[in-house]
This record gives sequence, structure tokens and C-alpha cells, in this order.
Amino acid sequence: MPSRESYAGMNCSVAAAHEILGERWSFLVIREAFLGTRRFDAFQANLGIARNVLAARLRALVAADVLAPRRYQERPERFEYVLTEKGRALYPIVVALMAWGDRWAAPRKGPPAVLVDRETLRPVEPALVDRRTGAPIELGKVRLVPGPGANAVTRRRFDLARRAAAAPRR
Amino acid sequence: MPSRESYAGMNCSVAAAHEILGERWSFLVIREAFLGTRRFDAFQANLGIARNVLAARLRALVAADVLAPRRYQERPERFEYVLTEKGRALYPIVVALMAWGDRWAAPRKGPPAVLVDRETLRPVEPALVDRRTGAPIELGKVRLVPGPGANAVTRRRFDLARRAAAAPRR
Repeated sequence: MPSRESYAGMNCSVAAAHEILGERWSFLVIREAFLGTRRFDAFQANLGIARNVLAARLRALVAADVLAPRRYQERPERFEYVLTEKGRALYPIVVALMAWGDRWAAPRKGPPAVLVDRETLRPVEPALVDRRTGAPIELGKVRLVPGPGANAVTRRRFDLARRAAAAPRR
Repeated sequence: MPSRESYAGMNCSVAAAHEILGERWSFLVIREAFLGTRRFDAFQANLGIARNVLAARLRALVAADVLAPRRYQERPERFEYVLTEKGRALYPIVVALMAWGDRWAAPRKGPPAVLVDRETLRPVEPALVDRRTGAPIELGKVRLVPGPGANAVTRRRFDLARRAAAAPRR
């Protein structure tokens, strides 16, 4: 069951992020939170998810500090779930996923949803750029190098990938 | 087994993209491809993945038009796997995942890997901006509206989320 295994011990920030966003329901809960949903019953209705599964996912996302519970009613006690700073920081990833899906996997009629500026209502066109220079980040123009947190396995992995890329072709 | 279920029929570009990137091994194969890995044995060595699992994931990614097989040897016949245009377009997502992981889940010593400009070797700082205006895309400044491909379920979902967000709080 590969998708159930953990990335624990993997020296990779991409994997760490995927650990949280890779699981289907967790991902859909986060997407829903970005749409403004906060309450258990609303998550449940919008996602058609079983209550016990939803409860487990909310617990995991609270444990990961992506959502924070906030009591909105005392008797009976009820909580809503709001995105933390760490959770809100996932937004560029969700937007990048949407942009890709719109371009490469949208229904024939066009995108199901459009991201617009709140004030001008003009559609937003997401692009990933280098904050310092404003230049688009493109595969051929950047490369990864081992960072300060690289362990021996990571360094070896970079070497292997470099060698594989440099292998002679016919 | 929620993570095994399909997003089929879900009217959502984010879900469509997640369908491909959500599965752990598929995701790691794509990450490896961005590192320059092309050959079966190199994928296998770098990921420590079972050969039958790797073969199945490569087949699925070829079927999804994310990777394309390219013959590099005739006898015996051998293929390497290169990213298609659709596959290369996943790059901003992987970079956004890495940026988030670096900020929120990096090991104590710092990021395991650093993205640098190929020419200047200066670190790149990924930011998601509106291509038209150059302004950062931030949660509070944009909103989603139903698009041309929205179906009835999607429109209702937007209504529900709006109502949940507008529910009175105490």
C-alpha cells in the first residue's frame, strides 16, 4: 500500500508538503477551507464525506497545525476549523494545482471555477516567479543544489540524478 | 479507502491535478523526473521502489500524458521516460510544494535542497503572482467564481461555501 506509507526520514521539503496534501480527503478539506468552509456540517455536506473520516482528517490537520479549532458555541460545545498561518501558506500550491488543471484537464466548456481579483473582478493569471527578479521560474533556467539541511542520502541522490541525466544517449 | 477513490465526476480542476499528483509514488516519480532521472533503473535506485510498482506508475503517467517513453536501445529494447509538455507544466506545483516545505517543515539545519538560477547560481525565491499585474496572489485579495465549465453541483457548492462563510458567529 504505497500511498499509506510515510515520508518520515525522507530528506525532502517537497515530500514533507506532500505528506499533508497527498491524502485525498485532507486535500479536499483544505480546498474547502480555502472556499470559506469552517463548520463540520458544512464540510460534510459539501464533500459528501463520512463523519468519522471527516473527524479523523480534521484531527490530523489540527495536529499538523494546518487548521485550528475555534469554539463558536458553548452548550453543546461546538468548534469550527480555521486555517492557521501555516495552512494559509498552502494557498499558492492549491492555486498552482488549479491553474494546471484548468489548462490540462478542464471540462470542454472551460474551467469549472475562475479566480478573480476581489476588487476589479478581473480573472487572475497565476505565474510562479522569482520574488527578487520577477522572472518566471522555468525548468531549464534553474537547478537544485544540496542545501544546508542536505544529508548524505540527499547528496548521493543528487549525484545519481546528475549521472542519470548525463548518461550517453543513442 | 478514501485515498483509492477517484475524483471522476468531480467538477474541479484542483481535483483533476491532484488525481495525478496525489498518489505518493507517482508524485515521487515526477519529482525524480524533474531532477533529471529518465531511466527505469535510475528511478528504481533513487526511490527504492519495487520494480512492479514502478512499472505500474510509469505506465499510468504515460497514459496520463505526463511522461512519454523514448527508446534508447534496440536489443534488448529499452525505454527512458521524459516529461511531456503537460508533465513539465507541473513544475510550478512542485516548486510551490518545496517552498512551503522549506518554510514550514524543513529540518533544523535548513532546506535539504536549494533552487538556484542556472547562470548566476543565486537562490530563487518562488512567489505566485498575477501574470498581468505582477501582484502577489493572496487569499484575501482574490475569490473564486463559477466558470464556464461549472455544472449545477459546482454552483450549489459555491453557494453552500458562501453561506457557511457568512454564517453568524458568536
